[in-house]
Amino acid sequence: MTATLHVCMTCRAGEVPQEDAPRAGALLHAALTAAGAPEGVRIVPVECLSACSQGASVALSAPGKWTYVYGRLNRTDSADILAGAAAYAATADGLVPWRERPVIFRKQSLARVPPMESPE
Amino acid sequence: MTATLHVCMTCRAGEVPQEDAPRAGALLHAALTAAGAPEGVRIVPVECLSACSQGASVALSAPGKWTYVYGRLNRTDSADILAGAAAYAATADGLVPWRERPVIFRKQSLARVPPMESPE
Repeated sequence: MTATLHVCMTCRAGEVPQEDAPRAGALLHAALTAAGAPEGVRIVPVECLSACSQGASVALSAPGKWTYVYGRLNRTDSADILAGAAAYAATADGLVPWRERPVIFRKQSLARVPPMESPE
Repeated sequence: MTATLHVCMTCRAGEVPQEDAPRAGALLHAALTAAGAPEGVRIVPVECLSACSQGASVALSAPGKWTYVYGRLNRTDSADILAGAAAYAATADGLVPWRERPVIFRKQSLARVPPMESPE
Protein backbone atom coordinates (compact mmCIF):
# COMPACT_ATOMS: atom_id res chain seq x y z
CA MET A 1 0.00 0.00 0.00
CA THR A 2 1.47 3.34 -1.04
CA ALA A 3 2.51 5.68 1.77
CA THR A 4 1.87 9.40 1.38
CA LEU A 5 4.43 12.02 2.34
CA HIS A 6 2.48 15.25 2.69
CA VAL A 7 4.65 18.36 2.52
CA CYS A 8 3.39 21.70 3.78
CA MET A 9 3.89 24.29 1.04
CA THR A 10 3.09 27.33 3.16
CA CYS A 11 5.50 26.79 6.07
CA ARG A 12 7.62 29.87 6.66
CA ALA A 13 9.92 28.15 9.16
CA GLY A 14 10.10 31.29 11.23
CA GLU A 15 11.23 33.46 8.35
CA VAL A 16 9.44 36.41 6.82
CA PRO A 17 10.13 35.85 3.11
CA GLN A 18 9.89 38.54 0.47
CA GLU A 19 6.44 38.62 -1.01
CA ASP A 20 7.39 36.72 -4.15
CA ALA A 21 10.10 34.54 -2.60
CA PRO A 22 9.35 30.84 -2.25
CA ARG A 23 8.57 29.74 1.29
CA ALA A 24 10.65 27.25 3.24
CA GLY A 25 7.94 24.61 2.80
CA ALA A 26 7.86 25.07 -0.97
CA LEU A 27 11.66 24.85 -1.10
CA LEU A 28 11.54 21.63 0.91
CA HIS A 29 8.88 20.21 -1.41
CA ALA A 30 10.97 21.10 -4.46
CA ALA A 31 14.05 19.42 -2.96
CA LEU A 32 12.08 16.27 -2.14
CA THR A 33 10.54 15.94 -5.58
CA ALA A 34 13.88 16.69 -7.25
CA ALA A 35 15.47 13.87 -5.24
CA GLY A 36 12.57 11.61 -6.18
CA ALA A 37 10.15 9.58 -4.09
CA PRO A 38 11.42 6.14 -3.05
CA GLU A 39 9.47 3.02 -3.95
CA GLY A 40 6.14 2.83 -2.20
CA VAL A 41 6.01 6.56 -1.39
CA ARG A 42 4.27 9.41 -3.12
CA ILE A 43 5.00 13.05 -2.35
CA VAL A 44 1.90 15.23 -2.09
CA PRO A 45 1.96 19.00 -1.49
CA VAL A 46 -0.58 20.37 1.01
CA GLU A 47 -1.48 23.93 1.80
CA CYS A 48 -1.13 23.76 5.59
CA LEU A 49 -0.48 21.09 8.21
CA SER A 50 -1.35 23.50 11.06
CA ALA A 51 2.08 23.11 12.59
CA CYS A 52 3.03 26.67 11.68
CA SER A 53 5.22 27.36 14.71
CA GLN A 54 7.20 24.17 14.05
CA GLY A 55 7.62 24.36 10.26
CA ALA A 56 8.68 23.32 7.80
CA SER A 57 6.62 20.21 8.37
CA VAL A 58 5.75 16.92 6.68
CA ALA A 59 3.41 14.04 7.50
CA LEU A 60 3.62 10.34 6.72
CA SER A 61 0.43 8.30 6.45
CA ALA A 62 -0.84 5.12 4.86
CA PRO A 63 -3.96 2.98 5.24
CA GLY A 64 -3.73 0.79 8.34
CA LYS A 65 -0.58 2.49 9.65
CA TRP A 66 0.28 5.02 12.35
CA THR A 67 0.45 8.60 11.03
CA TYR A 68 3.51 10.70 11.90
CA VAL A 69 4.07 14.46 11.70
CA TYR A 70 7.58 15.93 11.75
CA GLY A 71 8.66 19.54 12.04
CA ARG A 72 11.56 22.00 12.15
CA LEU A 73 12.74 20.63 8.80
CA ASN A 74 14.48 22.31 5.90
CA ARG A 75 15.52 21.37 2.40
CA THR A 76 18.89 20.03 3.49
CA ASP A 77 16.97 17.29 5.33
CA SER A 78 15.55 15.87 2.10
CA ALA A 79 17.72 12.75 1.94
CA ASP A 80 16.94 11.83 5.56
CA ILE A 81 13.22 12.49 5.09
CA LEU A 82 13.10 10.25 2.02
CA ALA A 83 15.09 7.50 3.76
CA GLY A 84 12.69 7.68 6.70
CA ALA A 85 9.70 7.60 4.37
CA ALA A 86 11.07 4.52 2.60
CA ALA A 87 11.55 2.75 5.94
CA TYR A 88 8.00 3.71 6.94
CA ALA A 89 6.59 2.44 3.63
CA ALA A 90 8.30 -0.91 4.20
CA THR A 91 6.55 -1.52 7.54
CA ALA A 92 3.17 -3.13 8.03
CA ASP A 93 2.05 -0.73 10.76
CA GLY A 94 4.17 2.39 10.30
CA LEU A 95 6.32 1.66 13.36
CA VAL A 96 9.96 1.78 12.25
CA PRO A 97 12.40 0.43 14.88
CA TRP A 98 13.90 3.36 16.78
CA ARG A 99 17.50 2.77 15.70
CA GLU A 100 16.47 2.58 12.05
CA ARG A 101 14.81 6.00 12.08
CA PRO A 102 16.72 9.03 10.79
CA VAL A 103 17.81 11.24 13.68
CA ILE A 104 15.47 14.01 12.53
CA PHE A 105 12.55 11.57 12.86
CA ARG A 106 13.64 10.59 16.36
CA LYS A 107 14.05 14.15 17.55
CA GLN A 108 11.56 16.18 15.52
CA SER A 109 8.32 14.26 15.84
CA LEU A 110 5.46 16.67 16.46
CA ALA A 111 2.82 13.97 16.88
CA ARG A 112 1.73 10.50 15.85
CA VAL A 113 -1.81 9.11 15.56
CA PRO A 114 -2.86 5.45 15.66
CA PRO A 115 -4.23 3.83 12.52
CA MET A 116 -7.94 4.04 11.85
CA GLU A 117 -9.78 1.14 13.31
CA SER A 118 -12.67 -0.39 11.47
CA PRO A 119 -15.79 1.66 12.15
CA GLU A 120 -18.19 0.34 14.74
CA MET B 1 -18.90 7.08 10.30
CA THR B 2 -17.70 7.08 13.89
CA ALA B 3 -14.94 9.55 14.77
CA THR B 4 -12.21 8.46 17.17
CA LEU B 5 -10.92 10.71 19.94
CA HIS B 6 -7.56 9.25 20.93
CA VAL B 7 -6.38 10.40 24.35
CA CYS B 8 -2.75 10.05 25.37
CA MET B 9 -2.59 8.28 28.73
CA THR B 10 1.09 8.88 29.39
CA CYS B 11 1.25 12.68 28.97
CA ARG B 12 2.85 14.31 31.98
CA ALA B 13 1.98 17.84 30.86
CA GLY B 14 5.30 19.10 32.15
CA GLU B 15 4.77 17.74 35.63
CA VAL B 16 6.83 15.14 37.42
CA PRO B 17 4.12 13.11 39.15
CA GLN B 18 4.69 10.86 42.12
CA GLU B 19 5.46 7.35 40.99
CA ASP B 20 1.96 6.04 41.66
CA ALA B 21 0.07 9.23 40.91
CA PRO B 22 -2.07 9.31 37.78
CA ARG B 23 -0.60 11.29 34.93
CA ALA B 24 -2.21 14.38 33.42
CA GLY B 25 -3.17 12.37 30.32
CA ALA B 26 -4.86 9.67 32.37
CA LEU B 27 -6.75 12.31 34.37
CA LEU B 28 -7.92 13.92 31.13
CA HIS B 29 -9.03 10.54 29.80
CA ALA B 30 -10.96 9.84 33.00
CA ALA B 31 -12.69 13.23 32.82
CA LEU B 32 -13.64 12.70 29.17
CA THR B 33 -15.07 9.23 29.72
CA ALA B 34 -16.91 10.40 32.85
CA ALA B 35 -18.54 13.19 30.83
CA GLY B 36 -19.40 10.67 28.12
CA ALA B 37 -18.66 10.59 24.41
CA PRO B 38 -21.11 12.53 22.24
CA GLU B 39 -23.00 10.81 19.44
CA GLY B 40 -20.72 9.67 16.65
CA VAL B 41 -17.56 9.78 18.77
CA ARG B 42 -15.70 7.07 20.61
CA ILE B 43 -12.99 7.77 23.17
CA VAL B 44 -9.94 5.53 22.86
CA PRO B 45 -6.93 5.64 25.20
CA VAL B 46 -3.49 5.41 23.59
CA GLU B 47 -0.11 5.00 25.18
CA CYS B 48 1.68 7.88 23.46
CA LEU B 49 0.93 10.40 20.74
CA SER B 50 4.58 11.53 20.58
CA ALA B 51 3.65 15.07 21.46
CA CYS B 52 5.30 14.79 24.87
CA SER B 53 6.50 18.40 25.10
CA GLN B 54 2.98 19.65 24.31
CA GLY B 55 0.89 17.32 26.48
CA ALA B 56 -1.67 16.47 27.50
CA SER B 57 -2.71 15.68 23.95
CA VAL B 58 -5.61 14.20 21.99
CA ALA B 59 -6.21 13.35 18.33
CA LEU B 60 -9.38 13.32 16.26
CA SER B 61 -9.61 11.05 13.24
CA ALA B 62 -12.21 9.33 11.08
CA PRO B 63 -12.17 7.58 7.72
CA GLY B 64 -12.13 10.09 4.87
CA LYS B 65 -11.57 13.10 7.15
CA TRP B 66 -8.66 15.34 8.08
CA THR B 67 -6.90 14.20 11.28
CA TYR B 68 -6.23 16.80 14.00
CA VAL B 69 -3.90 16.70 17.00
CA TYR B 70 -4.34 19.11 19.92
CA GLY B 71 -2.06 19.75 22.86
CA ARG B 72 -1.50 21.67 26.10
CA LEU B 73 -4.83 20.34 27.38
CA ASN B 74 -5.96 19.40 30.84
CA ARG B 75 -8.99 17.82 32.41
CA THR B 76 -10.82 21.11 32.84
CA ASP B 77 -10.95 21.27 29.02
CA SER B 78 -13.13 18.15 28.79
CA ALA B 79 -16.39 19.88 27.89
CA ASP B 80 -14.72 21.91 25.12
CA ILE B 81 -12.89 18.87 23.75
CA LEU B 82 -16.13 16.87 23.59
CA ALA B 83 -18.00 19.76 21.95
CA GLY B 84 -15.23 20.06 19.38
CA ALA B 85 -15.26 16.32 18.80
CA ALA B 86 -19.03 16.36 18.24
CA ALA B 87 -18.69 19.18 15.70
CA TYR B 88 -15.92 17.23 13.96
CA ALA B 89 -18.01 14.06 13.86
CA ALA B 90 -20.85 16.00 12.22
CA THR B 91 -18.69 17.12 9.27
CA ALA B 92 -18.10 15.19 6.06
CA ASP B 93 -14.40 16.05 5.82
CA GLY B 94 -13.34 16.96 9.37
CA LEU B 95 -13.14 20.69 8.59
CA VAL B 96 -15.23 22.50 11.20
CA PRO B 97 -15.82 26.19 10.37
CA TRP B 98 -13.34 28.32 12.32
CA ARG B 99 -15.93 30.19 14.38
CA GLU B 100 -17.60 26.95 15.41
CA ARG B 101 -14.42 25.46 16.85
CA PRO B 102 -13.78 25.65 20.59
CA VAL B 103 -11.09 28.23 21.36
CA ILE B 104 -8.72 25.49 22.52
CA PHE B 105 -9.02 23.85 19.10
CA ARG B 106 -8.28 27.15 17.36
CA LYS B 107 -5.25 27.93 19.49
CA GLN B 108 -3.83 24.55 20.48
CA SER B 109 -3.63 22.62 17.23
CA LEU B 110 -0.32 20.79 17.04
CA ALA B 111 -0.87 19.45 13.54
CA ARG B 112 -3.44 18.28 11.03
CA VAL B 113 -3.07 15.69 8.27
CA PRO B 114 -5.17 15.36 5.11
CA PRO B 115 -7.46 12.36 4.72
CA MET B 116 -6.06 9.22 3.15
CA GLU B 117 -6.55 9.20 -0.55
CA SER B 118 -7.38 6.00 -2.34
CA PRO B 119 -4.15 4.10 -2.98
CA GLU B 120 -2.66 4.36 -6.44
